[in-house]
Amino acid sequence: MQLKDVKSPKDIKGCSIPELNDLASQIRDKIITQVANHGGHLASSLGVVELTLALHYVFNAPEDILVWDVGHQAYVHKLLTGRFDRFETLRQQGGISGFPKRSESPYDAFGVGHASTSISAALGFAVARDKLHKHNNVVAIIGDGSMTGGMAFEALNNAGITQQNMTIILNDNKMSIAPNVGGFPKYLNRVISDPMYNKLRSDIDRVMEKIPGIIGRHFRNLFQMTEKAVKSALKPGQFFEDLGIRYFGPIDGHDMNELVSILERVKSIPGPCLIHVMTEKGRGMKLAESNPSRWHASVPFDPKSGEPLSPKSPIPSLTSIFGKTLLELAKKNEKIVGITGAMPSGCGLDIVQKELPDRVIDVGIAEEHAVTFAAGLACGGLVPVVAIYSSFLQRAYDQMIHDVALQKLHVVFVLDRAGLVGADGPTHHGALDLTYLRSIPGMTILAPSDENELRDMVTAAIDMEGPVAIRFPRSSALSSEIRDEVKPVPFSKFEIKQQGKDILLLGVGFMLHELEKTAKILAEHGFSPTLVDVKFVKPLDKEGYRNLFNTHKTIVTLEDNSIVGGFGSEIAELLSDLNLENHRLIRFGLPDAFVEHGKIPDLYRMLGIDGTSIANKLLEEL
Amino acid sequence: MQLKDVKSPKDIKGCSIPELNDLASQIRDKIITQVANHGGHLASSLGVVELTLALHYVFNAPEDILVWDVGHQAYVHKLLTGRFDRFETLRQQGGISGFPKRSESPYDAFGVGHASTSISAALGFAVARDKLHKHNNVVAIIGDGSMTGGMAFEALNNAGITQQNMTIILNDNKMSIAPNVGGFPKYLNRVISDPMYNKLRSDIDRVMEKIPGIIGRHFRNLFQMTEKAVKSALKPGQFFEDLGIRYFGPIDGHDMNELVSILERVKSIPGPCLIHVMTEKGRGMKLAESNPSRWHASVPFDPKSGEPLSPKSPIPSLTSIFGKTLLELAKKNEKIVGITGAMPSGCGLDIVQKELPDRVIDVGIAEEHAVTFAAGLACGGLVPVVAIYSSFLQRAYDQMIHDVALQKLHVVFVLDRAGLVGADGPTHHGALDLTYLRSIPGMTILAPSDENELRDMVTAAIDMEGPVAIRFPRSSALSSEIRDEVKPVPFSKFEIKQQGKDILLLGVGFMLHELEKTAKILAEHGFSPTLVDVKFVKPLDKEGYRNLFNTHKTIVTLEDNSIVGGFGSEIAELLSDLNLENHRLIRFGLPDAFVEHGKIPDLYRMLGIDGTSIANKLLEEL
Repeated sequence: MQLKDVKSPKDIKGCSIPELNDLASQIRDKIITQVANHGGHLASSLGVVELTLALHYVFNAPEDILVWDVGHQAYVHKLLTGRFDRFETLRQQGGISGFPKRSESPYDAFGVGHASTSISAALGFAVARDKLHKHNNVVAIIGDGSMTGGMAFEALNNAGITQQNMTIILNDNKMSIAPNVGGFPKYLNRVISDPMYNKLRSDIDRVMEKIPGIIGRHFRNLFQMTEKAVKSALKPGQFFEDLGIRYFGPIDGHDMNELVSILERVKSIPGPCLIHVMTEKGRGMKLAESNPSRWHASVPFDPKSGEPLSPKSPIPSLTSIFGKTLLELAKKNEKIVGITGAMPSGCGLDIVQKELPDRVIDVGIAEEHAVTFAAGLACGGLVPVVAIYSSFLQRAYDQMIHDVALQKLHVVFVLDRAGLVGADGPTHHGALDLTYLRSIPGMTILAPSDENELRDMVTAAIDMEGPVAIRFPRSSALSSEIRDEVKPVPFSKFEIKQQGKDILLLGVGFMLHELEKTAKILAEHGFSPTLVDVKFVKPLDKEGYRNLFNTHKTIVTLEDNSIVGGFGSEIAELLSDLNLENHRLIRFGLPDAFVEHGKIPDLYRMLGIDGTSIANKLLEEL
Repeated sequence: MQLKDVKSPKDIKGCSIPELNDLASQIRDKIITQVANHGGHLASSLGVVELTLALHYVFNAPEDILVWDVGHQAYVHKLLTGRFDRFETLRQQGGISGFPKRSESPYDAFGVGHASTSISAALGFAVARDKLHKHNNVVAIIGDGSMTGGMAFEALNNAGITQQNMTIILNDNKMSIAPNVGGFPKYLNRVISDPMYNKLRSDIDRVMEKIPGIIGRHFRNLFQMTEKAVKSALKPGQFFEDLGIRYFGPIDGHDMNELVSILERVKSIPGPCLIHVMTEKGRGMKLAESNPSRWHASVPFDPKSGEPLSPKSPIPSLTSIFGKTLLELAKKNEKIVGITGAMPSGCGLDIVQKELPDRVIDVGIAEEHAVTFAAGLACGGLVPVVAIYSSFLQRAYDQMIHDVALQKLHVVFVLDRAGLVGADGPTHHGALDLTYLRSIPGMTILAPSDENELRDMVTAAIDMEGPVAIRFPRSSALSSEIRDEVKPVPFSKFEIKQQGKDILLLGVGFMLHELEKTAKILAEHGFSPTLVDVKFVKPLDKEGYRNLFNTHKTIVTLEDNSIVGGFGSEIAELLSDLNLENHRLIRFGLPDAFVEHGKIPDLYRMLGIDGTSIANKLLEEL
């Protein structure tokens, strides 16, 4: 059977196991070629080829519900559910998404992107099914990394008591993006590898047969009583059984026979069941097998050598500049500790980790805990620096309010991936951070407009008081020449980059550079714009702004945050507070809508927030 | 020893066990008298009297750190740490807080109010201690209810791997506010009550002594191998051991001897240890022992009869009106399901539960799961109604965005306790919901201004599309006469309550009634105010507002939400979008600061957002 002929999962139902294995090999080729040509997530999908085939072979999607956790492992699922022809458009503007998405396909039962949601959603499907007297199956597929996220535990706790029929696949590859940390992953490893368990399992069976007649009645009674206890001790998944979830496994996730047979068997068992499936991240591509973290996602590459197709840019990422800056600071100040939620390299903390391993704490996928843990560290006298992507920090909104800000604790939040992120799309865009951070009393919010300012701000933040957030986009530095010296950051002050007379252009962070273009065009049309690097989104220098407003009746704001409650709204609030009527305020930013995936400059143009579009709009209005 | 003479925990160090027990009895009297006179939380503190005494007897606070989870059980701790004299000011404006609070006492190591934060914070203290080479002890005290919150699991997972010395007290009374639900609480019950465990524990010891000589070598070898497994099966806390946390217990939490001895012993054991302590909520007060849910918190009451001192008001609470309305709707529409996070009575869902028990799902303290679970229910064809207090829903901000709104799912959120809550103070004030809800694309936000509107809106919300939030304060209805008939709620429309000519008064929800007073005073001063019930905070009827703005140059907004990003900001945004300059916008609302506890009317006056203060401010300005 040819992969291109699989128009829906029905087409694989008649396959033999060898045919499924042949399809697995075609799928791997297709995915490797796609990512080699266009970039994307790689190693996770390679690890679940057999598992996905087995799921679609045994279950009948879309009537049967498959909920993928996080979803960057769902490329195989997309290929088997009618999206082979569009697969080359993956993650490109107008093309299919890199994640399951309800609006894209009826086979994508639940949209994902953030971790640990699948069991909750699947339980919802299962309860709804039962209340509506339907009989379909519901399956959640969750990685061991996502299992450390608290809401996965909340969902297990709930599923254990409601006892709905559902299957949870624990896809255990010992890592999410980085190797997993924590007591729970360690427990899973022990379950799989402890030879005592395996030896005991066979020994006990043999000896049990010999017991009658050998020992007295008293001992036999005891042994019967112990049996249940012994069995449960021997059973690796007691942790789940304790929560009310039946455990099966561990299963070899690349053995199609074993997968199909366990799925068939568990399908008919009532109540919630968990199948522990061992997979190898990057399976079938030597390079990825030996370094799955490196190949979690990739830019376009040469499939033979693994080398990137475009030569590596000499310009560093903002992420790495943050990491290097924090390393310098941590060397000088022993109180600084970095905290990451399972993403040391994504957040630049790997740079600190390499030289000062005990100064970075990876708490696993656990944003809520990360923030309250940081609050505890701050109470204990350290200076915690919590590095979490803008959209993931949404998870810890309450902890920032209740545990950090209310107690005026000095915790530094570093929000990478603020604003649009590009190909990862709406689940990952950091579109709301200025709004949610700004709502928190006492929060200081900094937005650097270039890499040197980023260095200055990270350095300054360490010595500020209370909660401080620094947010910057997924971007390279503007230049490869990083200023060595670090400049002071006067608290709450903006910086006038270009003094003019009529139109005031207020740019947040890297969006300043779009306004630079706007300023140039406006100047060509006879205007005299003033360009300001906002720097501090909170608190604002009210008197400084009053002076600016006194001489500028037209005020333009630009931010890569929603126009709802963001910096533009803050300026609107300020105008009202200062009782300054007669000002025209024009706010540019992300719309009050979810923005699709695509290349960032294209998205800016589409949304009318690139420098030229803004200039055109202003020339039209003024 | 007299309780009043305990000025600090040092004063109890010399006590004998009988003296401690006598103190326990004095403490119970003091707490019961206080709550009988002034109201407050009751049953939780009565349950931890011996435990708290033992903790302060064994540990040396404030050098040793005690972190209380949630904190309404911390009255005993307050009495023992220098706050006996101020205890009568508890929960009153200017008085001591009902929760541990860092700014109140050095003994309150970490401020709390929301659940499940204590292990995270304690681990932070422990890591900081070790990095700074200090040697104090760190203790977290957490209820079994809080243990179902995901972040507690995230913290256990982290503590299991970092292996810092710390003690976790699992205060197990089988309930948080309502009896606990879920696989995990059920597991804990099994641990304690299963007679097999207890019988086996003694039998195995006896038989083990007799083994040598009785059975052959092969069997002995096997038995040695099995021993570890058997032991762990017999050990009730294997769940925690699997995560890397040493388990001790269960311990009788009212036996002072046993408590002191286990705390002393565990103190010197390295790594994270968990002591499972069984307590009885409401202990020592017969009424509360027999109905601990009812006595979780109380209004002032007669200590003998338990009857409230003030006669029960004939005016129902908004909470109960919501519950009754949902019950009526649920009877007619089988697709409606209510969801609560361990607070069925707090949220009014107990009213539905009593008549239609299978239509309410209590997911435990698990706001994140509650929301994503609801998203799954909506995908599966039901109409989930998620009832969570405004400040607790902050926990699920990401899930509302990522799992509900992004997928345009129809989930109805019912936010009780929006705005100021009174005596519970800053951790519980629902001061930010309009801001965080408004940031979410596609969210419809409704704010009823009276009980009839609440009924209308709950009814209308069921038939709307996408995510819908209804927020209302902790309040009674305005009258005991509830309109039976339900009126339609025209989508997005405000309602003009009083047509005037000059000043436009826009009131959100129940704050409308403060503006009624304002309108009256303004009218007495010759103004002609127009009073509007906003009803829909999102989406706004832009054309409707444009018409209002055309005839009113002065616009006043009032909301019981932060002035940062709330409704006032929305009007400021709208004025900018409509290009309407020359308008004076004056925004009233909660400040960009945490508001202390106190009586709501007093707090309004203090903040200048009662009707009279607003009128005075306006008369001054205009």
